Amino acid sequence: MSSAHAKRQNALRAMLEERRLPVLLVTSLTNIAYLTGFRGTAGAALFKSREGILWVDPRYTLQAQEEARGVDVIEERKGLLKAVAAWLKTHKVRQLGYEETHLNCADFSRLRQDAGRGIEFCPVTGLVEMLRAVKDPNEVAQIRGAGRITAEVFEKVLKIVKPGVSERDLGAEIEYLMRKKGAEGAAFETIVASGARAALPHARPSPKLLRENELVIFDLGAILGNYAADMTRTVYLGQPSRRVRGLFSAVVEAQEKAAKSAFPGVRAGDVDAVARRTLAGHGFARFFTHSTGHGVGMETHEMPRLARGEKVRLQAGHVVTVEPGVYLEGWGGVRIEDTILVGPAGPEVLTPAAKDRWIVE
Amino acid sequence: MSSAHAKRQNALRAMLEERRLPVLLVTSLTNIAYLTGFRGTAGAALFKSREGILWVDPRYTLQAQEEARGVDVIEERKGLLKAVAAWLKTHKVRQLGYEETHLNCADFSRLRQDAGRGIEFCPVTGLVEMLRAVKDPNEVAQIRGAGRITAEVFEKVLKIVKPGVSERDLGAEIEYLMRKKGAEGAAFETIVASGARAALPHARPSPKLLRENELVIFDLGAILGNYAADMTRTVYLGQPSRRVRGLFSAVVEAQEKAAKSAFPGVRAGDVDAVARRTLAGHGFARFFTHSTGHGVGMETHEMPRLARGEKVRLQAGHVVTVEPGVYLEGWGGVRIEDTILVGPAGPEVLTPAAKDRWIVE
Repeated sequence: MSSAHAKRQNALRAMLEERRLPVLLVTSLTNIAYLTGFRGTAGAALFKSREGILWVDPRYTLQAQEEARGVDVIEERKGLLKAVAAWLKTHKVRQLGYEETHLNCADFSRLRQDAGRGIEFCPVTGLVEMLRAVKDPNEVAQIRGAGRITAEVFEKVLKIVKPGVSERDLGAEIEYLMRKKGAEGAAFETIVASGARAALPHARPSPKLLRENELVIFDLGAILGNYAADMTRTVYLGQPSRRVRGLFSAVVEAQEKAAKSAFPGVRAGDVDAVARRTLAGHGFARFFTHSTGHGVGMETHEMPRLARGEKVRLQAGHVVTVEPGVYLEGWGGVRIEDTILVGPAGPEVLTPAAKDRWIVE
Repeated sequence: MSSAHAKRQNALRAMLEERRLPVLLVTSLTNIAYLTGFRGTAGAALFKSREGILWVDPRYTLQAQEEARGVDVIEERKGLLKAVAAWLKTHKVRQLGYEETHLNCADFSRLRQDAGRGIEFCPVTGLVEMLRAVKDPNEVAQIRGAGRITAEVFEKVLKIVKPGVSERDLGAEIEYLMRKKGAEGAAFETIVASGARAALPHARPSPKLLRENELVIFDLGAILGNYAADMTRTVYLGQPSRRVRGLFSAVVEAQEKAAKSAFPGVRAGDVDAVARRTLAGHGFARFFTHSTGHGVGMETHEMPRLARGEKVRLQAGHVVTVEPGVYLEGWGGVRIEDTILVGPAGPEVLTPAAKDRWIVE
């Protein structure tokens, strides 16, 4: 077994032992990929003290045999959870941990029925996710690569950002360039939001054309080797007014101060507080309508959350976004975001693209 | 309210009345988009006889107010389902339908706890999905547009399909061209699988270079106006052997016979049987390892399923894929797929690209 997957499965087994859970059913496909290397779109895995099993349907048998480590691959034609239930019965399992946020009510009630009486179902939340939050050096290398591609693509695309180009064409260009630079693709649908649309934190690229004297928010991230990066930059098309400059420098200041505070041992909520306090000092606190950041890895949003009151402490190996924004309804918005590695000696920016941009024809 | 969304909400209310369900909680974002037009990545909606409510977090307030029809938009900062629970309490709801496949165990148990005693929770499966399966003329027009773009992109990309090009570059090219032709993007990660990798029905584009005398499977689909198309073509790079020709013509025959059988009133399982029987006649039955097709619409996979034994009858307005394939481990595979409209007078192909391709330098 490749040592990374062996380590992860051992770490999981140690957590199960600590919780006195003899068996864990893993239904999150991302968690399955993390633990075994299998990256199909359907599968169910089960881990006990000395055994791991991965059930897949016939579409994925070959791929699972090729990719999965540390588990026996079983092909199942009649429903993966039916097979799990049968296994639980045969092996007289009395207690089963299951991922309560990765199993829907329908699957759960069928599994419980099929498994028969005498099994205690124990909900488990965020167990594998806790392991995933702390990245090993290979994972950091992937995210670093994804971040470098993301930054390079943005710098390259800036050359065609001008009045008359559509948001959608810029989105297409960005995702194309990511692939050409070796990324597997975009980690999420690229956001290109201009003018008043920049006040919508999650706007999709529309056919709208960019115009002069507009703010444009770009939120993009490449995937490399199954790991995401996440970065946001805002540009202004024209000679910025004092208001625009003020907004920009407030957000950049909040973003950099918060990022620089991301040391091991600091509470996640404290990083959020730094961003919020800085924006408050400029009178923008109430226009910052979301949390400061989130973990990034195999998923674009993972643990830890950098939000108000989050008590969890940052650890070396955490990779998080820091992304304050200010949104003025009907007028526009500014958001600046980097993916940050919490290193043993402090934070390191993994999305190295310049931040201040006035684009003047 | 735009008449499409009004019609859908009325149809849903009629179904609820029939089932004597006073209130339905809708947690599938696709179902919310279908019923209201709101297309955010978080939301919860509730429908009762004369009222509709949509809860969103502050990121989506503006967008929801702009997009959503037939519902009151409520901004909620502390958890959407917490707000739903409070509403259920205040309004003394005694019976609540919930989408059991679109609510995870953790959310469900919290909702049940927060809502307090005295509420009966009634699992509901595929209710809105049943409405979604039958497309109205505007929806068909979108899928037709998505299918046309998909076919055009494939024909265009064929010009650069040759030995030495990587699967990944072809995938990037395909998705870029979709956007340039006005699509919102790709409905799913484009598959480009060459050589032995063509035996993996769900292979992702890899850095592998195409070689002479290989089969290459392309599985692609554009999204237009929130609706997907889905199409697969297989090409052979070189002068095909008799074996390759035989495989090709068997799959094309199975695909076309099955597609031509998709009339209103025919059982979904019978279309599957046509494909399976045809391949069996050529000795390939056991290499066809998946079902024949699935509905396509706001999601790439929706109702109805075209699988062995499916008793549901096709209706005018259903849009389905027909996609038999033959996979020979270690050697390669052939799959051909069209998106088909079940019209009142019979099936119509919505992904009009040629099927037989030998690419000879």
